[in-house]
Amino acid sequence: MTSPDPKTTLQLAVVPGDGIGPEVTAEALKVLQAAAPATVKLEQTRYDLGAERYLATGEVLPDSVLEEIRGHDAILLGAVGGRPGDPALPPGILERGLLLRLRFELDHYVNLRPSRIFPGVTSPLADPGEVDFVVVREGTEGPYTGNGGALRVGTPAEVATEVSVNTAFGVERVVRDAFARAQRRPRRRLTLVHKTNVLVHAGAVWWRLVQQVASEYPDVTVDYMHVDAAMIFLATDPARFDVIVTDNLFGDIVTDLAAAITGGIGLAASGNVNPDRTAPSMFEPVHGSAPDIAGQQVADPTAAILSVALMLDHLGHAGPAADVEAAVLADLAARTAGARRSTPEVGDAIAARVAG
Amino acid sequence: MTSPDPKTTLQLAVVPGDGIGPEVTAEALKVLQAAAPATVKLEQTRYDLGAERYLATGEVLPDSVLEEIRGHDAILLGAVGGRPGDPALPPGILERGLLLRLRFELDHYVNLRPSRIFPGVTSPLADPGEVDFVVVREGTEGPYTGNGGALRVGTPAEVATEVSVNTAFGVERVVRDAFARAQRRPRRRLTLVHKTNVLVHAGAVWWRLVQQVASEYPDVTVDYMHVDAAMIFLATDPARFDVIVTDNLFGDIVTDLAAAITGGIGLAASGNVNPDRTAPSMFEPVHGSAPDIAGQQVADPTAAILSVALMLDHLGHAGPAADVEAAVLADLAARTAGARRSTPEVGDAIAARVAG
Ligand SMILES: CC(C)[C@H](C(=O)O)[C@@H](O)C(=O)O
Ligand SMILES: CC(C)[C@H](C(=O)O)[C@@H](O)C(=O)O
Repeated sequence: MTSPDPKTTLQLAVVPGDGIGPEVTAEALKVLQAAAPATVKLEQTRYDLGAERYLATGEVLPDSVLEEIRGHDAILLGAVGGRPGDPALPPGILERGLLLRLRFELDHYVNLRPSRIFPGVTSPLADPGEVDFVVVREGTEGPYTGNGGALRVGTPAEVATEVSVNTAFGVERVVRDAFARAQRRPRRRLTLVHKTNVLVHAGAVWWRLVQQVASEYPDVTVDYMHVDAAMIFLATDPARFDVIVTDNLFGDIVTDLAAAITGGIGLAASGNVNPDRTAPSMFEPVHGSAPDIAGQQVADPTAAILSVALMLDHLGHAGPAADVEAAVLADLAARTAGARRSTPEVGDAIAARVAG
Repeated sequence: MTSPDPKTTLQLAVVPGDGIGPEVTAEALKVLQAAAPATVKLEQTRYDLGAERYLATGEVLPDSVLEEIRGHDAILLGAVGGRPGDPALPPGILERGLLLRLRFELDHYVNLRPSRIFPGVTSPLADPGEVDFVVVREGTEGPYTGNGGALRVGTPAEVATEVSVNTAFGVERVVRDAFARAQRRPRRRLTLVHKTNVLVHAGAVWWRLVQQVASEYPDVTVDYMHVDAAMIFLATDPARFDVIVTDNLFGDIVTDLAAAITGGIGLAASGNVNPDRTAPSMFEPVHGSAPDIAGQQVADPTAAILSVALMLDHLGHAGPAADVEAAVLADLAARTAGARRSTPEVGDAIAARVAG
């Protein structure tokens, strides 16, 4: 994965989404403005997609919109999702139709989720140690493909299936990305997380390809952990991890736990990366739209802001990316326990540090 | 689920298994002997099944052995599994062929896993609160069915699938069991954990049946949590849970995290229960065979001993079950930090408390 020459115009598709999505996105954009090099012209196109649009128009992601978005350099997404249990919003309609459709259509096969306990941040773990790992979650296969279906729906004879699809093609490319990342990190350690003792078919592909690619990276130490055992290590010794590579569903689960133990979902950033750069990558906080606290400007925009750092880095602006991260670190270290700032106050503070 | 009249003869199939399995099983049996009412005659049949037998004979679970086991009142299992990565032990051969085969053939559709922070036990969480919940994990469906397969294995064109199978029949019965348990507990709260926004077909059956059964239990409070969100709550506010009902794979993951935060896998007991009593239920510690510490008599047998309490309760011996639990509680409270006892020392101490 090589970084491109940074472009002088950055065309950004912005999908603020629902709930707290627009609130945290506004702060992320503020920080992006402050961080972007003066030589870079920022152009934004805003796309109103999400629960609100669906409820008003029945549209989730029109093909024409997808094609427009495809023309951009990157996508910044807030969060999508309506009120849980809203009968007008069938479960999955937005997740499958919008979020996952973007990930799949734009071939975001590396779902990148760094986990670090930043100085000044409190972990719920009594003794977490120095935690700094990254989860490379596969983004275009596994149980997320939407394969499966149901028979005799709503009757006592219903049968519903979900098919996890795993290809050597899909697994190898994400495993390669993970090894390349592991090699660039000081500890050079890669852990495959799966459930090879039960999901024997899928497990075999993952196992084989990790072994195979490992032989090209003799300086990377490789180990394996069942997903259930990974829970235990994440709760008792998260400092042991460096790079975790795992499938789409296990990655979803592992990264929320990782976010929790590193100080909360308000700090967890993610990149949906297309390393081949055949389509724009998408950057979003790991958290959801949190309808319960929407409209109050109390959400922590830090995860969205850190997602901007991932985006800048992906686009070849390593310096500005580091500036954003440094500003966030400084802001976190300066936070005083109990003092609550509004969403824009946090964004302003971080933007000011970036500019200053 | 009604308890049977306790039998006067208890025919127990004992599967010590591999690694630390035989060591912890010996202590569990010691405590069972001490706890069983004098009027109950204990008869044990030992079955040598597991990695050792497979490596020596190629046999995993001969049909004739399965049929013999079926004739017992209950099964006590230690742990099965050989050295991870042993090329002579294909991944899953024992798990699928022995452990899961027993669960499936004997229709253990309720996989019961209580999680409690016992007095005197240290959680890795700084501030866990009062944790006392039980996970009702479905045991005979979901991604554990072994459905799926692979094409062009070992080539760059490999495609491997895993099919999660979910039936209204299978989901309704475990959901009913979970509601009945919730109603018997003081807080009467049930949380469905799933991933309905991605696994929409399977999610729909679970969601529908929880709603449907809920209408028969107006005094049970019901909520829903995506499995990723459940990770966050287990790490930050585990005290909020009372009864969790979930599918086979999510249950596997959630219960290992639950074990970790309640003081470790050395304390986590489980019952593979056939509530209809058409076949013997099976009781086992959640932990595995831990080949790395096998033969040293250093494993904590408490999880196996607590599994005996679950077994006694299932067999209608509520009093002796409570005695075992009380003895374990007293033992845990008396443990002194840093002092390590051998496996038999722990078993002896608990057995003595039960007898005394
Ligand atoms: C909203 C949902 C579809 C999504 C996922 O499961 O991937 C989210 O949980 C995430 O982790 O980005
Ligand atoms: C050994 C394995 C097949 C098993 C499972 O996945 O159910 C174990 O992890 C458990 O939780 O009992």
